Amino acid sequence: MPKLWTETIDAHRAAVRDAAMDAMAALVATHGLVAVTMSQIAQQAGIGRATLYKYFPDAQAVLTAWHERQITTHLDQLTAAVDPAAPAIARLEAVLHTYAHIQHHSARHHGGELAALLHRSEHVDRAQQRLRGFVQDLIAEAVRDGDLRDDVATDELATYCLHALTAAGTVPRPEAVQRLVTVTLAGLTARRR
Amino acid sequence: MPKLWTETIDAHRAAVRDAAMDAMAALVATHGLVAVTMSQIAQQAGIGRATLYKYFPDAQAVLTAWHERQITTHLDQLTAAVDPAAPAIARLEAVLHTYAHIQHHSARHHGGELAALLHRSEHVDRAQQRLRGFVQDLIAEAVRDGDLRDDVATDELATYCLHALTAAGTVPRPEAVQRLVTVTLAGLTARRR
Repeated sequence: MPKLWTETIDAHRAAVRDAAMDAMAALVATHGLVAVTMSQIAQQAGIGRATLYKYFPDAQAVLTAWHERQITTHLDQLTAAVDPAAPAIARLEAVLHTYAHIQHHSARHHGGELAALLHRSEHVDRAQQRLRGFVQDLIAEAVRDGDLRDDVATDELATYCLHALTAAGTVPRPEAVQRLVTVTLAGLTARRR
Repeated sequence: MPKLWTETIDAHRAAVRDAAMDAMAALVATHGLVAVTMSQIAQQAGIGRATLYKYFPDAQAVLTAWHERQITTHLDQLTAAVDPAAPAIARLEAVLHTYAHIQHHSARHHGGELAALLHRSEHVDRAQQRLRGFVQDLIAEAVRDGDLRDDVATDELATYCLHALTAAGTVPRPEAVQRLVTVTLAGLTARRR
């Protein structure tokens, strides 16, 4: 085959592949990612489809409710990790450790993948905001105590923390989770360079 | 209605709701999340379904290829951000800034949601590993120069960085992206407390 001909075929192949990928991206952007149907949920749950519809309008609503339940459970665990008599920085450390361990364990199930679906949901943003608000309040208190940097807004520091600690879902051992918390906390402490 | 009766109904409602959520979680854990079908991709791409199947065995493969393409583009951008004559710490800062800005922009499209789907894929793990390897090598060099903490393994520091910087996808303004990079870098610098 002449070289030009091969190049044309290669270019054509590349174009088809690219078109398929662009299509995938466009479809997901438009329709979202929830592959699970109401029928599947009803069957898996062992209830009738009509019953399920009395409780949830669609599969996204089930997913949202599931995530709200998860976050509420996590908030309970985080609140329990706090000794109200301890200084804010100690309470923050306890909360971040607990949160990192929750991430570490839930990634071994399906939590990480599911949580990823939930960006588009209003309800879930509210659940996430409660979690972030809880962490942000602790950070604000520790900043007032002079234990953390004051050159970055507390909401940005809370967002940083919660994202950095999702790394706990990808590390293999509990010792690494501990080190991740140490590194993340170091980012929160004031340090001019 | 007597109180006991109400409580029974409430308990029943809660049980049904919980069962639906458990079912959702189980289905996603088993079948994954990809809602898009090969037919939809072919139609959106304006190609025949048979043609599409010559290139990709299933929708997950399209997704994986899409993600590989994204990561490759990002690696090119990150490499371009580096001045080879600069010290490792300066190259690392440039790379982290560029990566944070990529996160900031791609979250405004569909990147964040799609990327989340890809944990289960072997291929994608390889693409992610190339990215992490690139960052890890820079960190290792900066540690040897004495510019970064040496009490945590470089692969753990690279994982921390890349997760912390995904927060750039959720902050509204470019200035906040800049501050996020500063805070993340502070976590990398040695500091015994």
